[in-house]
Amino acid sequence: MKVIRDSIHGDIQLEEHEIKIVDTPEFQRLRRIKQLGMTYLVYPSANHTRFEHSLGAMHIAGRIAKKLCLSEEEYRLVRLAALLHDIGHCPLSHSSERLLLMYLNTTHEALAKEIITSSEIKDIIEEYGYSKEEVIKILERKKGYLSKIISSSLDADRMDYLVRDAHHTGVAYGIIDLDRIITTVEIKENELAVEHRGLRAVEALLVARFLMMPTVYLHHTSRIADAMFLKAMEISIEEKLLKSSDLWKMDDYSVICFLRSCENKYQRDIARRLDTRNLFKLAYSKRWNEIHPARRKKLLKDLKLVRKLENEIAESCNLEYGYVIIDVPPIPRKEEIDVKIIKNGEIISIEKESQIAKILKNAQKDLWSFEVYAPRENVEKVRKVCDDIFGV
Amino acid sequence: MKVIRDSIHGDIQLEEHEIKIVDTPEFQRLRRIKQLGMTYLVYPSANHTRFEHSLGAMHIAGRIAKKLCLSEEEYRLVRLAALLHDIGHCPLSHSSERLLLMYLNTTHEALAKEIITSSEIKDIIEEYGYSKEEVIKILERKKGYLSKIISSSLDADRMDYLVRDAHHTGVAYGIIDLDRIITTVEIKENELAVEHRGLRAVEALLVARFLMMPTVYLHHTSRIADAMFLKAMEISIEEKLLKSSDLWKMDDYSVICFLRSCENKYQRDIARRLDTRNLFKLAYSKRWNEIHPARRKKLLKDLKLVRKLENEIAESCNLEYGYVIIDVPPIPRKEEIDVKIIKNGEIISIEKESQIAKILKNAQKDLWSFEVYAPRENVEKVRKVCDDIFGV
Amino acid sequence: MKVIRDSIHGDIQLEEHEIKIVDTPEFQRLRRIKQLGMTYLVYPSANHTRFEHSLGAMHIAGRIAKKLCLSEEEYRLVRLAALLHDIGHCPLSHSSERLLLMYLNTTHEALAKEIITSSEIKDIIEEYGYSKEEVIKILERKKGYLSKIISSSLDADRMDYLVRDAHHTGVAYGIIDLDRIITTVEIKENELAVEHRGLRAVEALLVARFLMMPTVYLHHTSRIADAMFLKAMEISIEEKLLKSSDLWKMDDYSVICFLRSCENKYQRDIARRLDTRNLFKLAYSKRWNEIHPARRKKLLKDLKLVRKLENEIAESCNLEYGYVIIDVPPIPRKEEIDVKIIKNGEIISIEKESQIAKILKNAQKDLWSFEVYAPRENVEKVRKVCDDIFGV
Amino acid sequence: MKVIRDSIHGDIQLEEHEIKIVDTPEFQRLRRIKQLGMTYLVYPSANHTRFEHSLGAMHIAGRIAKKLCLSEEEYRLVRLAALLHDIGHCPLSHSSERLLLMYLNTTHEALAKEIITSSEIKDIIEEYGYSKEEVIKILERKKGYLSKIISSSLDADRMDYLVRDAHHTGVAYGIIDLDRIITTVEIKENELAVEHRGLRAVEALLVARFLMMPTVYLHHTSRIADAMFLKAMEISIEEKLLKSSDLWKMDDYSVICFLRSCENKYQRDIARRLDTRNLFKLAYSKRWNEIHPARRKKLLKDLKLVRKLENEIAESCNLEYGYVIIDVPPIPRKEEIDVKIIKNGEIISIEKESQIAKILKNAQKDLWSFEVYAPRENVEKVRKVCDDIFGV
Repeated sequence: MKVIRDSIHGDIQLEEHEIKIVDTPEFQRLRRIKQLGMTYLVYPSANHTRFEHSLGAMHIAGRIAKKLCLSEEEYRLVRLAALLHDIGHCPLSHSSERLLLMYLNTTHEALAKEIITSSEIKDIIEEYGYSKEEVIKILERKKGYLSKIISSSLDADRMDYLVRDAHHTGVAYGIIDLDRIITTVEIKENELAVEHRGLRAVEALLVARFLMMPTVYLHHTSRIADAMFLKAMEISIEEKLLKSSDLWKMDDYSVICFLRSCENKYQRDIARRLDTRNLFKLAYSKRWNEIHPARRKKLLKDLKLVRKLENEIAESCNLEYGYVIIDVPPIPRKEEIDVKIIKNGEIISIEKESQIAKILKNAQKDLWSFEVYAPRENVEKVRKVCDDIFGV
Repeated sequence: MKVIRDSIHGDIQLEEHEIKIVDTPEFQRLRRIKQLGMTYLVYPSANHTRFEHSLGAMHIAGRIAKKLCLSEEEYRLVRLAALLHDIGHCPLSHSSERLLLMYLNTTHEALAKEIITSSEIKDIIEEYGYSKEEVIKILERKKGYLSKIISSSLDADRMDYLVRDAHHTGVAYGIIDLDRIITTVEIKENELAVEHRGLRAVEALLVARFLMMPTVYLHHTSRIADAMFLKAMEISIEEKLLKSSDLWKMDDYSVICFLRSCENKYQRDIARRLDTRNLFKLAYSKRWNEIHPARRKKLLKDLKLVRKLENEIAESCNLEYGYVIIDVPPIPRKEEIDVKIIKNGEIISIEKESQIAKILKNAQKDLWSFEVYAPRENVEKVRKVCDDIFGV
Repeated sequence: MKVIRDSIHGDIQLEEHEIKIVDTPEFQRLRRIKQLGMTYLVYPSANHTRFEHSLGAMHIAGRIAKKLCLSEEEYRLVRLAALLHDIGHCPLSHSSERLLLMYLNTTHEALAKEIITSSEIKDIIEEYGYSKEEVIKILERKKGYLSKIISSSLDADRMDYLVRDAHHTGVAYGIIDLDRIITTVEIKENELAVEHRGLRAVEALLVARFLMMPTVYLHHTSRIADAMFLKAMEISIEEKLLKSSDLWKMDDYSVICFLRSCENKYQRDIARRLDTRNLFKLAYSKRWNEIHPARRKKLLKDLKLVRKLENEIAESCNLEYGYVIIDVPPIPRKEEIDVKIIKNGEIISIEKESQIAKILKNAQKDLWSFEVYAPRENVEKVRKVCDDIFGV
Repeated sequence: MKVIRDSIHGDIQLEEHEIKIVDTPEFQRLRRIKQLGMTYLVYPSANHTRFEHSLGAMHIAGRIAKKLCLSEEEYRLVRLAALLHDIGHCPLSHSSERLLLMYLNTTHEALAKEIITSSEIKDIIEEYGYSKEEVIKILERKKGYLSKIISSSLDADRMDYLVRDAHHTGVAYGIIDLDRIITTVEIKENELAVEHRGLRAVEALLVARFLMMPTVYLHHTSRIADAMFLKAMEISIEEKLLKSSDLWKMDDYSVICFLRSCENKYQRDIARRLDTRNLFKLAYSKRWNEIHPARRKKLLKDLKLVRKLENEIAESCNLEYGYVIIDVPPIPRKEEIDVKIIKNGEIISIEKESQIAKILKNAQKDLWSFEVYAPRENVEKVRKVCDDIFGV
């Protein structure tokens, strides 16, 4: 048994095989991947990493497993899955997530599988008598309630990151009632569900996440910084300066240093801008309901169209490619709100019981917006061109 | 007025000239310099930076200035000094401090003066009608009580870092009673002193710092990581791969990437070891009272002797230079404990009133130790050689 | 200046006239009136009192006044009003509030006026050059934004009690972002409004209050204990054992001791039951939408009808009067949710901007229920009779 | 399993037999006994009670038992002992402790035994197959390490009250590192000891207690209020208005109401003074080293002498008996500091390893003082008489 002191959970205990996994280079890399990507440009204390979050998620997953009286083996498997759930994250976490999708048609979850099976981690798991296949199945959402502990609207991942992000940003909304949620969680029909007396705690968690979204996760300034970073990486990959398949071996240090010392002028400019917080500004913005559904759909699906538009706008403004960036974030998924409640022995959807949960499903969309960014001195020009293209 | 949300103090308000200073590249660099250097290898959440600490110190300095009813001008000067007190910190904070001393015969405090006067910061200070000379004098401890607010046993710096380091490491000892200390602080005979009713709060602060030392600041594992980093940097400077005068322009990202991609094999090995937390181990250790005062003095003063010893031990063990590291930390200074108390209108030293303060002065020394590090597989051999040289 | 250490706000500073008011017997009485009445029977740590809450409300009111740059005089008046806003509370706070309405046709707010003008408090206010009339006008909601600081959906009262109740019950929902709300508050058209960038903080506050309602303020068990206490007091007043006009001179100690030593057997039984937490149980319950609007209205308005029904049910079950209690709480008021937001220089209602605020207005009603209580051994019998009278 | 939400530990789980004990009138009485007696007159939020503290101590005792891998039976016994360790506390906790000694020659610990064996509690313990004798032996310090968990320098009692008192007073000194202490606790030679790596956490706990003493536990103003309450109770017992053997059946409510309605004028005056915080003032004070050891010893041992002196001083000042109170608190016990440390497999006293622990043993005495109190208007006269009797 080893103990690691965490800023959120105090002492986190690890068993021998868990320590060995933590000691692999693959896991140590997470120490250098910021949990919230560029958000530290808005909340200066948001420097926490995927490393401590992974430990925290493992800790919570173990507490849930204990509450559910799972077998020793399931307890260990679910802790392993939680520990490894973010092993595939690329530099600056979500900031580089879209690169994976674009160039490798994969996600950090899928990468996790690859990293586990291609590294020493698989050997450690097997050496201690556990099955790497089972761990991967849990991560792939193929193991019913075990998977739900790791990935669902009420998982150990979310319970850890909400509290942790609140602690490190200084934004109070993420405080949730961990104790109450864990003590009311049950397995019912192979689902993870919450007893009715835990309803308020779940509502509080859903609201916490909802409020953290505009305040932290989708904060304007970090969206801009993310978009700039993304564009610089994209161009580097297109120009073969960087291999997309190397992304998961990199960390925050290596991508920043890569951009700083890139032979290409654009990348160096972006690196300098990020280093000195001299960011692009918002030139144009449209909310969910202000944009025609057909166009919205197209923008969301057709990456080539987006690039073409970026190019067109830049040219109209006499700007080089890369100095006009269109940001079309993915639509928040309704499933994020879907929690199962046990009432009088029956499983029901939380919407049946909670008007708050119901409203959040729709309110999420209002947090979405389509935005165009450009250097401060070009904002006016770019805005005018956008007004012409997308409507005032 | 702009507001920055801090994980410790909540909303920190900044005036226009303060924001402009924060926006300079010199100040933004602090975002990428970890407050506690390599400590994140022990406490994974210890990723906070000099950036937020500088804002926090400014905030506390302002609160003290208000309590003391200083003039508007002194209030602003003391906030500026606090904001800038760490501007000269080099990568990984204290980890690189000894390089400054060795190669430039300077400190981060002295560098601060240079950075302020050679950058845009000086212009901003003057544009708003303040005197950069005054700010620098405060930082140079030449301005009586104003300097004491920034640098003394009871300064804004310490009040911020104790709480901040506790919050981010998860170690509870650093919690202090900020409110009580600030409301009992007085100026007396050009000194910063505390009313007698604040005695317990000051004792608590002194004990907090004392307990944080072995637990966090002098933690074994971060001492080792620091020593490894230091040796790799030292060799790089000696071999002209790095200019010591460039240190203050670098950040954590650039030094780590420099070591990773260094043409020299040793540096690359150290970078890999730090990245994967495959650290040297303790081979030999002697406490303050276990080592002859004359030898102690020599080791502390004579850097060449230390290198010669490192070399000798390495050779005896068939190791290359750099794989045996001797760590001789500076002696804790007694002045760190010296707080002035006001009792019945007289200024007295805290030792007169507090047995705790008295004992801490001496107890500090017990935290000091002379240590020798080497790769895990060479620890036994190195220990034997050290036993011969320094005594069992 | 005197300082009182508070569990929530740290050091609260008081000026000379404020200390004198705190030192009056009228104000000291608040030390013995629990903030949350009988809630300590559910949350054992909920023993905090109106005394510290009043200090906390004063502290927050002062912070708001400073943010709004009010004059010195308005700053002091608004702090005085906040300090005195609960001076009229009777034993166990809200538990006895309904007695005031029933027998004196008054509220604790109205009583506050009487206590201020009939006691030494008025002299202290005037001695220091302030106007007691102004203070009372603020409390009576006749002073525009000043009154709104004390009593509105976004007042100092609520900001204090939510955090304080969370801290002392251990229920995390009450944590709000005080800093953000205070820094975004503005006066606009004689109204207290919040800048748009404070919207999320206000939503969080509204949700916090909403979640605290079923979890703490309307918790089942404290409703039952309250109803028992109320019935015992009611009978005592009816039987002239207690004068309703003496209520505001009493405290938690005196009412409990009165009931314990009452000559009437019922009161002694209730006292014993409260002392040993041997409470009545829920026999029957109907939610807002399960009860015919006309009947609901009648029950809410016609106290005599309620008593007649209690009597009837008790007789049907062979129980003495007082052993069947019908609880018809007041309807939550929609105004509680109504916050003004400033968007593009215009004042708008929060509902325009926030789907959450909109839904809470209606969701509040779902927290309401009509309930009937009886001793554990009579619950079944009483339920059957209620089914007959009110429908299954 | 039932869960009680606590302000410190979150959800505290109770087994069936524990709930039954909590539900007895004897245990419910603790809800109405303030943990810190009259301290709420200094720290207004200090209204927490023996009830929640007892639950908290049980919770920590259970955590220690689990860490030590005790048997199921020992685990339950030690939780029961912790739950019941304060069942004998009389009104206002320590305030009435001296009455027990004076009139019944007993302590709350001894009373606990009596209450357990003479009430339903014994039946519940036995019904569930546990031995009340064992529980009592643990409380009587006759069961080696089990007793040490409940009562020693490092017990569950202290670990709970330090944190709880800090949380409710707002004084930060009581924050301790529970996690670290519990994970380093060991049984060694039938003793409870701490591994060397827990040394700093133990030092922090000892300092926390030391600093809480003058700041909270021995705060001047609560000493005065306690002394006034004690004198009024003493006179009531002497005059047969109150039976000392009834003390343990009373609670804070009944003693305050008793004094308020006492036929004797003195008691009513004291009650009024406590209710309105119109307290006696310090007239004379001597510290440990300012008073001749022989006299100190006499004052500590000879209660009759103290009363005679009170009487003499009162007469000299034309005051009635009771308006001059001499307070001679018990000497702090050195054992309070004595913690066992395990170093290299050996048990040693903490003093061997910690200069802080060593100094605290002596520093404790400096917190002691002999004091004389009188109404504000008589303070000067009383001081002069005391100067004559005890020396300037």
